[in-house]
Amino acid sequence: MIFVITTYDWVPPFAVGYVRDLRIRWACEEAGLPYEIETTSVRDKTPQHFARQPFGQVPILRDGQLTLFESGAILLYLGERSEALMPREAAARAETQQWLVAALNSLEPVVMAMALARIFDQDARAEELALPRLQERLAQLVPVLKGRDFIAAGRFTIADILLADVLRIVDSMGELAAHPVLADYMNRITARPAFRRAHAAQVAHFAQAA
Amino acid sequence: MIFVITTYDWVPPFAVGYVRDLRIRWACEEAGLPYEIETTSVRDKTPQHFARQPFGQVPILRDGQLTLFESGAILLYLGERSEALMPREAAARAETQQWLVAALNSLEPVVMAMALARIFDQDARAEELALPRLQERLAQLVPVLKGRDFIAAGRFTIADILLADVLRIVDSMGELAAHPVLADYMNRITARPAFRRAHAAQVAHFAQAA
Repeated sequence: MIFVITTYDWVPPFAVGYVRDLRIRWACEEAGLPYEIETTSVRDKTPQHFARQPFGQVPILRDGQLTLFESGAILLYLGERSEALMPREAAARAETQQWLVAALNSLEPVVMAMALARIFDQDARAEELALPRLQERLAQLVPVLKGRDFIAAGRFTIADILLADVLRIVDSMGELAAHPVLADYMNRITARPAFRRAHAAQVAHFAQAA
Repeated sequence: MIFVITTYDWVPPFAVGYVRDLRIRWACEEAGLPYEIETTSVRDKTPQHFARQPFGQVPILRDGQLTLFESGAILLYLGERSEALMPREAAARAETQQWLVAALNSLEPVVMAMALARIFDQDARAEELALPRLQERLAQLVPVLKGRDFIAAGRFTIADILLADVLRIVDSMGELAAHPVLADYMNRITARPAFRRAHAAQVAHFAQAA
């Protein structure tokens, strides 16, 4: 069974290495799950794309007859297929899902608010509102990650994929250096060979597309 | 086994009926899972609270030795414990998780950006940036929910709890009426007796606390 991951055919240079298909490539690399890539137009989003993904986003995963979107949901799905991604034991599994959801719902929204303000809207007032909210969340994560190698269950999980990838966005905006505990965690998790392979593959994909 | 749900001891009047413990009460009511309520101070958040919930939020669920936060993660956990909340079949289960995550990561952030702008920050520029993003997402949901009774798997699931509860926030800001398909869905889902019981219980809790 080969998973098929749909991503865009092109993105602007600043987005290369940050498109959410990276999270799915990374999970597949960690678990040794084979996958191939299909593309959909980002500049002319098609009715077929919206029919599969109502928000016109990527990634989309196809597994036989099943089509799934939302990187967080795809990670939960792959996590159930490979113990390399999510433990089987109930409490460890619940803790993994807790931190996956925390990254999606309590951290990523404040990170994206900051990215929208600074990069997309370039709006000083919006940035002034977003920055303290981002800094508060980052500060709250520091005691959690201090002395902890992984965010959940004492081992690598899909929660690390999501949390480290969201922290990469923070780092790209220059806001992570003030929190060495978080920067160390991100650097440690993204030093994994599976991340390196996934990242290189995404960069190569968009270089070819350019 | 009795679940223990932690919520705040008090919230301002506009938040009554919207505190996230509602989602967990609702799931327990749907599944016939007994629960009791404990409170933690919202005005003087304690070190004990932050030790259990790094962001100082509620709800927190206790199930024996296990403590869990993030309403989305708690719903996933309860979903695994009751088929009334999440189907067992793999594809239906994946679709349920997909829409739960979509509500958490693609809808709730644009809704909360609007709520922050209009209610908390009362900032005209922030609202001007947030409103079109909210309206775009709502418009994208309309074709999905047209002619569909439930958001996922052809039946009631935890994805409906999350999606309908996020749409309630939109409705409270007066922005849902322009989308009758979404308003009908929200009204239908929140007409369920389990929602009514959960909502009444939260309102009674904060009335007593006032």
